[in-house]
Amino acid sequence: MKKISESYSFGGKQYIYSHKSLVNNCEMTFSVFMPPNYKNAPVLWYLSGLTCSHLNVLEKGEYRRKAAELGIVIICPDTSPRGEDVPDEKDNWQFGSGAGFYLDATEIPYSKNYNMYSYVTIELPKLIEANFDFDMSRQSIFGHSMGGHGALIMALRNPKKYKSCSAFAPIVEPSSAGWSSEAFKKYIGLNKENWSMYDSVALVKNGHTFPEILIDQGEADSFLDEGLRPWLLTEACKNTSINLELRMQPNYDHSYFFISTFMNDHLMWHNDRI
Amino acid sequence: MKKISESYSFGGKQYIYSHKSLVNNCEMTFSVFMPPNYKNAPVLWYLSGLTCSHLNVLEKGEYRRKAAELGIVIICPDTSPRGEDVPDEKDNWQFGSGAGFYLDATEIPYSKNYNMYSYVTIELPKLIEANFDFDMSRQSIFGHSMGGHGALIMALRNPKKYKSCSAFAPIVEPSSAGWSSEAFKKYIGLNKENWSMYDSVALVKNGHTFPEILIDQGEADSFLDEGLRPWLLTEACKNTSINLELRMQPNYDHSYFFISTFMNDHLMWHNDRI
Repeated sequence: MKKISESYSFGGKQYIYSHKSLVNNCEMTFSVFMPPNYKNAPVLWYLSGLTCSHLNVLEKGEYRRKAAELGIVIICPDTSPRGEDVPDEKDNWQFGSGAGFYLDATEIPYSKNYNMYSYVTIELPKLIEANFDFDMSRQSIFGHSMGGHGALIMALRNPKKYKSCSAFAPIVEPSSAGWSSEAFKKYIGLNKENWSMYDSVALVKNGHTFPEILIDQGEADSFLDEGLRPWLLTEACKNTSINLELRMQPNYDHSYFFISTFMNDHLMWHNDRI
Repeated sequence: MKKISESYSFGGKQYIYSHKSLVNNCEMTFSVFMPPNYKNAPVLWYLSGLTCSHLNVLEKGEYRRKAAELGIVIICPDTSPRGEDVPDEKDNWQFGSGAGFYLDATEIPYSKNYNMYSYVTIELPKLIEANFDFDMSRQSIFGHSMGGHGALIMALRNPKKYKSCSAFAPIVEPSSAGWSSEAFKKYIGLNKENWSMYDSVALVKNGHTFPEILIDQGEADSFLDEGLRPWLLTEACKNTSINLELRMQPNYDHSYFFISTFMNDHLMWHNDRI
């Protein structure tokens, strides 16, 4: 693990590290915010959206003041493998670099590197546990857009691993959304049965469960009707034990202006459950 | 005035505009954050540092939550004129684009465009007054580094125009600091007597005054000893009526991790005085 940078902020420390990922077969970068009292602090994972890296939320997410106050560690992984040896489609923002979709690819040539599901749920937590004194028995997860999708599928598939799950404007049914279904074909093939493990609506329909989910969604989000459609998850959760709260926020768009506005709400919500 | 973008944030609106500046002879960009109740709201100007534009603090400054709560308009100008017709030294981050030093250049060829002092104190306020319903009788000013220098000289030279002034890690004596003295030579010539109107330590020594000034300065700031040296202003303010509070903040560097940490303090401080 290599320290890239370290800055004091809100009485805590904002770090950026990189390391050699075995599951992604490349150098991966991530950020860690440590609150002033970080020893045995719980860990909240934030997963970013399409085109982002670990840096966007670090710069624009406005999470440090409240995380420092609450004593929560915030870890933000990158959104995909990267590097000269990693296959990519440079002009396609919906596939490859910045668009790992938090799945484990099965198709050649992507399966060698695009294994973000195992990276975020297994490899990176192990690295964190080995290198920091956080309380890894208390982990929660949230994210934005493609990262909201990631948070939802990881929580639904690992309900004992994560204490709580929330999302900003998540892609709830990537199997049927234009910006993800093309990527799914390339990453995991044409057999749609294999897609259901990476689709939160399908996971819920197939009986996966999680106690509570909080979703904030801007009503002025230009991706709402075609790419996001959170009501599909509301519908799927009906008559299940999942307590889903979907809050439609008038006037807000898909940007970090929206995310930062509701960041404190999500941090406090996780803090009550983590 | 042309609207570049508009986003809901913290119940208010974050705008970016551009307009044709007469004093800078080029298109200038600036941001305006309007709190939910913006009618007759006071205006707080934020001036950015070297290499920055209006965007850096908009993305990393974390001012919107508190400004929305307090009902303060935040306006962030660019740090210099820009454009193909504006003379520049592209490889020099301490001069030209991003380095206007908030002065009115007298030397050819810079005097045609580099007039940030008049732009920030006169032209832009007039544009704002003509286009918005803010209370322009209540204006205050703050800034970071080169922008802290700008805020200090503008307040000291216009004590009736600004209700309050504060700074993060300001350049207090640009006449003698390496990163500014070379720029001063090119912008306003070799006669150092002409520099004193753009140097807060010199202004104070020459009898300019302002009721109170708040400065936060990180102790781990790598520019502290050579470029910033806030103690020079403390020294100059002794035996004057200026109440200068210099707060040295252990461990903090020169970045927006530092600025965002103390942003709320400054907003509340201005709110008590504006």
